[in-house]
Amino acid sequence: MIKVDKAKKLRELLCQDKIIRVAGAHDGISAKLAEIHKFDAIWASGLCISAVQTTPDASILTMTEFLNAASIMNESCNLPVIADCDSGYGNIHNVIRMTEKYEAMGIAGVCIEDKVYPKLNSFLNTQHDLISIEEFCAKIRAVKMTQKSKDFVLIARTEALIANLGQDEAYKRAKSYAEAGADMILIHSKSKKTDEILEFVDKWDIGVPIVVVPTKYPHIKAKELENHGVKMVIYANQALRAAITAMNKLYENIIQNDSTINIEDEVCSVEEIFDLQNMDEMERVESEIYKK
Amino acid sequence: MIKVDKAKKLRELLCQDKIIRVAGAHDGISAKLAEIHKFDAIWASGLCISAVQTTPDASILTMTEFLNAASIMNESCNLPVIADCDSGYGNIHNVIRMTEKYEAMGIAGVCIEDKVYPKLNSFLNTQHDLISIEEFCAKIRAVKMTQKSKDFVLIARTEALIANLGQDEAYKRAKSYAEAGADMILIHSKSKKTDEILEFVDKWDIGVPIVVVPTKYPHIKAKELENHGVKMVIYANQALRAAITAMNKLYENIIQNDSTINIEDEVCSVEEIFDLQNMDEMERVESEIYKK
Amino acid sequence: MIKVDKAKKLRELLCQDKIIRVAGAHDGISAKLAEIHKFDAIWASGLCISAVQTTPDASILTMTEFLNAASIMNESCNLPVIADCDSGYGNIHNVIRMTEKYEAMGIAGVCIEDKVYPKLNSFLNTQHDLISIEEFCAKIRAVKMTQKSKDFVLIARTEALIANLGQDEAYKRAKSYAEAGADMILIHSKSKKTDEILEFVDKWDIGVPIVVVPTKYPHIKAKELENHGVKMVIYANQALRAAITAMNKLYENIIQNDSTINIEDEVCSVEEIFDLQNMDEMERVESEIYKK
Amino acid sequence: MIKVDKAKKLRELLCQDKIIRVAGAHDGISAKLAEIHKFDAIWASGLCISAVQTTPDASILTMTEFLNAASIMNESCNLPVIADCDSGYGNIHNVIRMTEKYEAMGIAGVCIEDKVYPKLNSFLNTQHDLISIEEFCAKIRAVKMTQKSKDFVLIARTEALIANLGQDEAYKRAKSYAEAGADMILIHSKSKKTDEILEFVDKWDIGVPIVVVPTKYPHIKAKELENHGVKMVIYANQALRAAITAMNKLYENIIQNDSTINIEDEVCSVEEIFDLQNMDEMERVESEIYKK
Repeated sequence: MIKVDKAKKLRELLCQDKIIRVAGAHDGISAKLAEIHKFDAIWASGLCISAVQTTPDASILTMTEFLNAASIMNESCNLPVIADCDSGYGNIHNVIRMTEKYEAMGIAGVCIEDKVYPKLNSFLNTQHDLISIEEFCAKIRAVKMTQKSKDFVLIARTEALIANLGQDEAYKRAKSYAEAGADMILIHSKSKKTDEILEFVDKWDIGVPIVVVPTKYPHIKAKELENHGVKMVIYANQALRAAITAMNKLYENIIQNDSTINIEDEVCSVEEIFDLQNMDEMERVESEIYKK
Repeated sequence: MIKVDKAKKLRELLCQDKIIRVAGAHDGISAKLAEIHKFDAIWASGLCISAVQTTPDASILTMTEFLNAASIMNESCNLPVIADCDSGYGNIHNVIRMTEKYEAMGIAGVCIEDKVYPKLNSFLNTQHDLISIEEFCAKIRAVKMTQKSKDFVLIARTEALIANLGQDEAYKRAKSYAEAGADMILIHSKSKKTDEILEFVDKWDIGVPIVVVPTKYPHIKAKELENHGVKMVIYANQALRAAITAMNKLYENIIQNDSTINIEDEVCSVEEIFDLQNMDEMERVESEIYKK
Repeated sequence: MIKVDKAKKLRELLCQDKIIRVAGAHDGISAKLAEIHKFDAIWASGLCISAVQTTPDASILTMTEFLNAASIMNESCNLPVIADCDSGYGNIHNVIRMTEKYEAMGIAGVCIEDKVYPKLNSFLNTQHDLISIEEFCAKIRAVKMTQKSKDFVLIARTEALIANLGQDEAYKRAKSYAEAGADMILIHSKSKKTDEILEFVDKWDIGVPIVVVPTKYPHIKAKELENHGVKMVIYANQALRAAITAMNKLYENIIQNDSTINIEDEVCSVEEIFDLQNMDEMERVESEIYKK
Repeated sequence: MIKVDKAKKLRELLCQDKIIRVAGAHDGISAKLAEIHKFDAIWASGLCISAVQTTPDASILTMTEFLNAASIMNESCNLPVIADCDSGYGNIHNVIRMTEKYEAMGIAGVCIEDKVYPKLNSFLNTQHDLISIEEFCAKIRAVKMTQKSKDFVLIARTEALIANLGQDEAYKRAKSYAEAGADMILIHSKSKKTDEILEFVDKWDIGVPIVVVPTKYPHIKAKELENHGVKMVIYANQALRAAITAMNKLYENIIQNDSTINIEDEVCSVEEIFDLQNMDEMERVESEIYKK
């Protein structure tokens, strides 16, 4: 449990001269595996945290439940965790409590979006209503006024493109959010072509760094995004999607063979689980304590 | 959330003339996928619940945390959930509270083992100490006295073979546990050959049904176990092991390609996640409520 | 932990020919003391649950936290617990999850009010905005569609008088809520005279029973309310207010005397705490289990 | 939520030249009232936290539940909180996780005792079994090795006098615990005379400060204890006992008068609750955020 320096660690990544690669996680072990594979940070995905509880991504789980999931990720790895906090769980007072709680748990940063609360997942084919710029800037100020450490990072996410409000509205909102104090701007797009996102990025002339989530335009390389000036790329939900596919195959195989004999080569060993659980650290500490 | 009838559902499975196939799960979505693939019940695995929090399987998580994880599985599917409750979280008073809490949350049954508290995972190469038969029978009576519904199922697990105490001790313990009121006996073995487990099973002459966990002897078919009179087979941790392997491959691939373009065929779609989250049920209910 | 029959128990109280006296509680021990003093039911007060965490009564605590507090009360006594659920923690989907969760935990009934979410305490001198009748009726239908047992009780609370919208609006709203399926109507008033509340009550001609909360008009007797046809009276926060006053005196006394010598007669004994903790039941069960 | 400096604050109190007066609390509001009355620190009492859930003081609640209660106290006031952690919730590995969790939540210090786990309250007339000195010293080392800040305080509590093992055993244990790294020694006594506790205190010649809990010998003044060299006095459970007595009177009065008219002078106003809930801070922050 290394907590104190996670926000600082994220700030240091922001100061480096390269794009930050962030893995979306849904529990402690997916976060730890991302660390092993050298990702820079963890995205505590609202979609994925909801999904592992088979609950819609629609502000159904409470802040308490989302925070608990993010904290488990945070304790499971040494990477800084950025928490996807939807629209901030209500009004400015809920945003204030959210900030207090997430920072106190050692989360490095939070992301809030300008959708109406309760929100719906951005990839659903439905009308997405945004709150006013003024109201969202109040939420941004609420975070910045509340955080105790200057290092705690706030990502402001605009859903203007998701809501089909156009590039001008997206730019206007992002600029306002930056001026209100956001540390980063997340511009979200569900277009399968990169034109939409790159148009925004190429036009961006404010000194606040940009975050993108290429779920729907997977062919673009992080390096290419870096060349366009993007500072952070989030692979938000692929780990869970890989796990679901693997478990589907596994269960099918067990039922077909009426045993697990044919899946032993496709699954890790029990000993690998023990390693991921830090069993050896437990033994090491035990011998250290008793030898004294 | 169908809760009331889960214990009854498990009892009905016990009355059927075939072996019960149980999938080990670690969260809501792994439980739901097991239901989709027609498993009969869910094993809320202590090893796996600990592992997704990167915590050793050594009574480190609290009963509150294990119960929360089991409840999420229970709410995520219509299958009865059997909770792996280690050694019962302490003494008989802890067992009593455990029983009250798990039954109140709609869990269909619990399994407790005759190891000393705090316990260690059975597959670790270490000394495994058991409590006395008298003490464990007291725990069994504590569960049976506490449960409100006669349907709530108690599985008593003996670690006599794991602790290398021999077949006679295993039989003696299992018989005592059955007499003390256990509804099922789980006989655990880490031998890679089935000789050990089948010797116990073939000798068993008490009318209380047997449960096995073939993690270390994966080649035996459930049907074969059924022919030997085994009533329940638990595939305790394969789903998590498949998920870990899949996530390892995924993360490696993303880092290598610097994008997710090459993994799109190996992961499920975002829409499949929406389905597992019951988004359509949410829409259906919404239209029903507002049309009235 | 008697859970199954609490909703039924509350229904039976509703069928009796007298007013139901309900004590507001803030934790398990205040609920248990109310049972000892023969109150009929417990009100899991939103104000008081927030207050013992020194948090404003403004939808700041999450549903998870309120539910946890109500569940502790429920497990601590044999009385049915009615949970004050503010405006339902969001929209109809949050109301649906709320209903699933509270009913699953054995809570006998819930009360939701027609204020905008996030809400503010009714006794604050501020503007109180209500949602439309249509929207609130949708929430009522959401509860009734979701509950599994027909016994689970929904109290619909209108804040029309609190919001100074007048008797006609209060009547219109209450009537609509009753028609939408509410089992009881809570009419709230902050007038220090009983005229306001009695005008509403005397005019009420719908066969759905009425609940009142005489915090601001404390002189009226429950029997008198019963004569006016009121079915339930809630003393919502007096227990906490008495506890605060007592603790203030105690702390002052300890500091003044630099010891606890002068307060021993004003506080209960440690043994009385043991009784309230059911220590004797623990001993009784222990001897029963081990004598077998 | 001021968290970072609480352990440091407690260390500063230890460096001052006077006894530290600590109030036992059971929730956020009892902790905040103690701060208002100028106590120096809060004791998150295991007895009281169990009692407000009507649960025996016998390691029945889990570490998760005790930690949650202590954290609520910690967030509710600016005083450092010392958590009563019973026997450490199991073995050294449970003690390690306990230390990680409590320190991460900003708790200033923990107290563990040398009773067998699960433990029983010290004032119960029963046999109290202690673990060996070696085993308890291992727990002490486990805490000290785990804590991240040097300021985090460990109080080692010996129950030697409670277990009737005599002054020599008490001294021997306390000395060993001090040598193993405990920051303070809590010597517990249930004798109604102060002879027992003062004999220990007067003999104590080790440079590790002493803590006492005068529940059973209430006539001794803190100043007198200070003169004997005691560094900390804990009034562990009086606040809850005062609250219970007050609520008993209140409920009796309501039932007798069939209204709350006769108790209005004995309970604080609703407005005083609003103050304790920081409603004014909420309003202040709101105007500050929106005026910008």
